[in-house]
Amino acid sequence: MKLSELAAQTNSKLLFVSTPVELDIQGLTTLELAKPGDLSFLTNFQYRDAVASTKASAILTAKAIPGCQLPQLIHPNPYAVLAQVGQLFFPVSHSFTGKSPLASVDPLASVAASATLYPYAYVGPRAVVGEEAVLYPFAYVGADAKIGDGTVLYPSSTVMERCEIGSRCILHAGAIIGGDGFGFAPTRETLLKIPQVGIVVLEDEVEVGASSTVDRATYGKTTLSRGVKLDSQVHVGHNVHVGAHTMLCAQVGIAGSAKIGSRCIAAGQAGVGHGVSIGDGVVLGPCAGAAQSESQPGEYMGMPLLPSKKWMKQQFALQKLPDLLKKVAQLEAQLEKMRKQIEK
Amino acid sequence: MKLSELAAQTNSKLLFVSTPVELDIQGLTTLELAKPGDLSFLTNFQYRDAVASTKASAILTAKAIPGCQLPQLIHPNPYAVLAQVGQLFFPVSHSFTGKSPLASVDPLASVAASATLYPYAYVGPRAVVGEEAVLYPFAYVGADAKIGDGTVLYPSSTVMERCEIGSRCILHAGAIIGGDGFGFAPTRETLLKIPQVGIVVLEDEVEVGASSTVDRATYGKTTLSRGVKLDSQVHVGHNVHVGAHTMLCAQVGIAGSAKIGSRCIAAGQAGVGHGVSIGDGVVLGPCAGAAQSESQPGEYMGMPLLPSKKWMKQQFALQKLPDLLKKVAQLEAQLEKMRKQIEK
Amino acid sequence: MKLSELAAQTNSKLLFVSTPVELDIQGLTTLELAKPGDLSFLTNFQYRDAVASTKASAILTAKAIPGCQLPQLIHPNPYAVLAQVGQLFFPVSHSFTGKSPLASVDPLASVAASATLYPYAYVGPRAVVGEEAVLYPFAYVGADAKIGDGTVLYPSSTVMERCEIGSRCILHAGAIIGGDGFGFAPTRETLLKIPQVGIVVLEDEVEVGASSTVDRATYGKTTLSRGVKLDSQVHVGHNVHVGAHTMLCAQVGIAGSAKIGSRCIAAGQAGVGHGVSIGDGVVLGPCAGAAQSESQPGEYMGMPLLPSKKWMKQQFALQKLPDLLKKVAQLEAQLEKMRKQIEK
Repeated sequence: MKLSELAAQTNSKLLFVSTPVELDIQGLTTLELAKPGDLSFLTNFQYRDAVASTKASAILTAKAIPGCQLPQLIHPNPYAVLAQVGQLFFPVSHSFTGKSPLASVDPLASVAASATLYPYAYVGPRAVVGEEAVLYPFAYVGADAKIGDGTVLYPSSTVMERCEIGSRCILHAGAIIGGDGFGFAPTRETLLKIPQVGIVVLEDEVEVGASSTVDRATYGKTTLSRGVKLDSQVHVGHNVHVGAHTMLCAQVGIAGSAKIGSRCIAAGQAGVGHGVSIGDGVVLGPCAGAAQSESQPGEYMGMPLLPSKKWMKQQFALQKLPDLLKKVAQLEAQLEKMRKQIEK
Repeated sequence: MKLSELAAQTNSKLLFVSTPVELDIQGLTTLELAKPGDLSFLTNFQYRDAVASTKASAILTAKAIPGCQLPQLIHPNPYAVLAQVGQLFFPVSHSFTGKSPLASVDPLASVAASATLYPYAYVGPRAVVGEEAVLYPFAYVGADAKIGDGTVLYPSSTVMERCEIGSRCILHAGAIIGGDGFGFAPTRETLLKIPQVGIVVLEDEVEVGASSTVDRATYGKTTLSRGVKLDSQVHVGHNVHVGAHTMLCAQVGIAGSAKIGSRCIAAGQAGVGHGVSIGDGVVLGPCAGAAQSESQPGEYMGMPLLPSKKWMKQQFALQKLPDLLKKVAQLEAQLEKMRKQIEK
Repeated sequence: MKLSELAAQTNSKLLFVSTPVELDIQGLTTLELAKPGDLSFLTNFQYRDAVASTKASAILTAKAIPGCQLPQLIHPNPYAVLAQVGQLFFPVSHSFTGKSPLASVDPLASVAASATLYPYAYVGPRAVVGEEAVLYPFAYVGADAKIGDGTVLYPSSTVMERCEIGSRCILHAGAIIGGDGFGFAPTRETLLKIPQVGIVVLEDEVEVGASSTVDRATYGKTTLSRGVKLDSQVHVGHNVHVGAHTMLCAQVGIAGSAKIGSRCIAAGQAGVGHGVSIGDGVVLGPCAGAAQSESQPGEYMGMPLLPSKKWMKQQFALQKLPDLLKKVAQLEAQLEKMRKQIEK
């Protein structure tokens, strides 16, 4: 693809340090891995040194790179252009098409003509699989479940009965949608299981990472709104509502009945407590534990949750605490000494 | 079902604010979702406002709701009644019965006549599957493993060789019983694998959440006692013993050789260290890290573990630490000033 | 096997308290479980009491056990001998051999003659499966992926397209190699997916625990070097490099582009942040959070990371903080009182 076309398609500016030339771009990769003919990218100026030694033929960047002689594709959001160009160069493909005779489809299920069923895909009774959906081996679609158009279920991903997956969603390998919520009533003798009869709804363009689990509601729905992205090994409990375009990083856990706003980010291993409500635009740092609700946008750390700056200040203070203990003991001694001096 | 029958079956008291009537109860759901004919519930008085607008025909509650005109089913443990009534209205059902010709059963295995094998269930040599057990697609039962009566293995749940699963257990999708314990002997050159030759035993009525993992013992047994409930993504290491009716919430990790008492609760993301012993009735808060043993019942937080109240006090104190540092510096200066005044 | 042969094969010293005899050793297990004819072991002198009551016929230990009348196999690294003897007594075995007609192999795949395919194993186009590799039911090998000689894929383990698994590796049940890295470009309207087109490389003798996930690189490779061992539910992000013989315990999370040295250990639930670099020989304690790079070998705890001793000192200091707050308030009051006395 011509570099000028890439610039036009992505609304980027083309910068030529020397004479403008037309370039045929054949690939996209990092500065280190690039070969002649590749477009590369500098999205973080910290890594600027790699520019000098790259073999790339052109570089995507947020602003002109001082001293760089290569043609530059300039855009204020280079990540977005990276995504767009990446999708052009690396369209999603699947190694199998059609419907394997080794797949198992219940006679009452409805699978669209253009859907792909790998060997050992399973579709239960009354389930609906949309156009151009792809079910990899060991993908499970339970009774009465719905899989939207263009949605991909990678190997061993599981959609339990009655759950509804929107269009253009991606369930990575081992993702499990619709396991039972964790609900038991303790009695003197035992723990009685509270039946979990709600469902999970994934709106369009939701992505669920490998081995992540989203539990069905006790009653009603657990909802991942449009464009929500879950990384690997994320857990979302029963009756949770996650707002649009929120990202939950690896190993995040959201307890039952919590509400997460839209455009939030939870960094790795963060947690949100039962019934807690998190407002739009809140960013939870790594390992943060939201035991109470937080409605104000901003970055938070720790448990209990604190604004990140405050948390950092507190951590620095904590490092001085052992010395402070000694100092206070000294002050006490001095004060006692002075008291005696005065009283004399 | 008649409301009076529900009351009788659950040992609940029936309260009519106006004239007693007989009601035919057709469903059970939340106050918000209820339609006429449904029984609903108020288990937490915090949500009392929802009573005014519910369309439910009757309400289950721990004590009479002031101002509520609806018939009320009153029981000191409404959660338990909720579980019982839920089980009446929503009996567990499976979308397939019989033995699919697409299941694979080793000729030396023994599968009970009333067991269900979905397509692509696998049962290895000498394995035993009990009466009314249900194996969903991609359920794996290894050689010499035992699955008790009425136990359900949801999709992609895995019971490795020789492990023993009791009766009426539930393995949710992706649950893995009997992976190797994590044991390696470091030498100068490498890490030698210590063979993991023990097993896992799940007693009756154990439930294991989606994508949870319970490792086999190095030697001997890893045991989940009767009625233990694991949420999703819980990890239980080799040689662990978990006592009866203990609940481990999502993403809890129990390291090898730990002992957890009966009727304990570990909240989300809590951890218990290698060889640590936790007594009966201990409650670990979210993210708590039990690095040392704790035998006293009660609630604990943090790492090292502290009684919850002490931990909270400590957290509040911590928030005052940056100011305390300043204050002590001021005290020091004042003291120095006074010392000079005195010495003059 | 003769005890003298075991001693010779493992370079151990044989200690007889009374007259040397030749013993035929038939098994290996713990002191508690041992029967006559078994070799047992005392690797931790804390458990020395169990020696008195064991029925074992000989004991493996690091140094002579005072008062023990049994023949002793003595070696400075008894764990290593335990591993070696364990491998002799419990060679890895699989309940099936050959190639099940119920396995699905793409016509363009290449599966070695001595490889085992259980029912419902899947091998995609152009994939290569080495000699004596074993694919359990529901193991998935994607297009163009490579599985080395002697590597075992347990049930529902997944190797996505183009990923490369070395020789003598073990993927436990539900392990997922090559899911997409978590990369999205936020725009005003949405989150654009950045295609993840790199691969995962597992060098020889890597072991990946049940339900662990290793993401493919955005570009280039995510690498687990020779002999790396991952416990269950470990997550390794895109473009991470883990050095040789490093062990990551259960529920550890390594964020994208991090570098972990060789011979490191990360204890359960520890985390390493995006792009962070951890040097050779670093040990991260349980729940430690490496938000910054750390090049010095040693043991670390907490977040931010601190040397373990310093962290512990800090935790002890923290427990005194509520009292310190009171004491400083008293000091302030006393000082004020003295100031008034002096000024009088």
